[in-house]
Amino acid sequence: MIVDNLDLTFIAAKLEALEETIIAKLIDRAQFLANTDIYKKGSSGFSEDRSHSLFEIRLIQQERLDARFGKFCAPEERPFTRNLPTPKRIVRMPETGLKIKDFDLISQSKEIIKRYLELIPKMCNDGDARDDGQYGSSVELDVYSIQAIARRIHFGSLYVAECKYLADPKGYGTLILEKNAAALMEKLTRAEVEKQIIIRIREKTASVQQLVNRLIRNVIDPDVVAEFYKTCIIPLTKNGQIAYLLNRVI
Amino acid sequence: MIVDNLDLTFIAAKLEALEETIIAKLIDRAQFLANTDIYKKGSSGFSEDRSHSLFEIRLIQQERLDARFGKFCAPEERPFTRNLPTPKRIVRMPETGLKIKDFDLISQSKEIIKRYLELIPKMCNDGDARDDGQYGSSVELDVYSIQAIARRIHFGSLYVAECKYLADPKGYGTLILEKNAAALMEKLTRAEVEKQIIIRIREKTASVQQLVNRLIRNVIDPDVVAEFYKTCIIPLTKNGQIAYLLNRVI
Repeated sequence: MIVDNLDLTFIAAKLEALEETIIAKLIDRAQFLANTDIYKKGSSGFSEDRSHSLFEIRLIQQERLDARFGKFCAPEERPFTRNLPTPKRIVRMPETGLKIKDFDLISQSKEIIKRYLELIPKMCNDGDARDDGQYGSSVELDVYSIQAIARRIHFGSLYVAECKYLADPKGYGTLILEKNAAALMEKLTRAEVEKQIIIRIREKTASVQQLVNRLIRNVIDPDVVAEFYKTCIIPLTKNGQIAYLLNRVI
Repeated sequence: MIVDNLDLTFIAAKLEALEETIIAKLIDRAQFLANTDIYKKGSSGFSEDRSHSLFEIRLIQQERLDARFGKFCAPEERPFTRNLPTPKRIVRMPETGLKIKDFDLISQSKEIIKRYLELIPKMCNDGDARDDGQYGSSVELDVYSIQAIARRIHFGSLYVAECKYLADPKGYGTLILEKNAAALMEKLTRAEVEKQIIIRIREKTASVQQLVNRLIRNVIDPDVVAEFYKTCIIPLTKNGQIAYLLNRVI
């Protein structure tokens, strides 16, 4: 296995490997209906918290658990919530090679939730059916889905940006000094690579579902996942890259 | 979609649908090495708990969170740990049709953990490499894996058993009165169906991995998952069915 954090082949392969995980999590969630009540604030039915939605409560509590285990020590694991506890165990983190003071500066978490919630009806509706009462399972799988999506976006934001910078420190350095986000976006965009990713996502989403029993298993339209990559995952990764570059410690 | 809880076609399809989830979770876990230290009691490095292993601590804390959301109200969701909190929200459970006083009577949880831990080295080792230091991610994915496996085993234990009973109440009734576990095992075993499941598992495990990038993604041998179904998931489901029948309220 390749182990160089800042080798672009390694990073691209790692991003590619995260695709399977994202697709699998979305498929899991799509086995339940949209259940829009779970996203409404104050209607969680949760006795300990009357102000958040059930989805938000699950997210807060899962991140508190994850934080105690040290999940957010990893640069690519940016939390969605705040005021998290410190790790309760010693976490050994290898040297990352990243040049940024605070990993949260690149966080796209807020936007990820917004876009993910827009994806739900495209994936989960079944004709006119919108609610199956499976609220607990739905929010559980929502959280696992957005965590997988965020891992991909933030991993790309950090490591791809640093890698591209290292390939042309002078070119990027000038644009960073100018704080020229538009020119940075143009410089780091690789339209051909993006196109290939979207094609591959469509193929993988179809491929992993080809042997399922459609009598009981809801099959996601591969175009929906490909479109989500095109309009959410790829653009937010690039936004994160620009945030990284503009905050890079020279 | 079919919605009859006690229709054998529906139950079989539901069990089949859970296969994708189990395979996906095992593949996720197999992206990390065996990391056997995480299963050793007292070496968790977790400051709040010095007696359990890191795996056990993660399992306890995840189940405490899940319990608050009402996960274990579902018959097929049998917990691995004890002394869990009651749900903090109102959980609506549809009528199950099951005839048993306490769903935990059919629990195979203890045996599931034992067998799962034996599976880890078969799935996760990479030549001589045994430890990658990714302890937090490994235990997180261990917990999600055993939860998926347990859901399949306990769903089959409950609903398949009730369904078979209803198809021949007199035949099963006699054996139940005799407490004849051996004869029950013989009566409920369908060797041809088991063989088909194992073939399908091998095919699915190969199929869902066919487009992955092997440069970075560890591919699980489909025979390992098929063997796990043969020697663990199917036999434990049948043990659970016998436990159900022997505890069935007449």
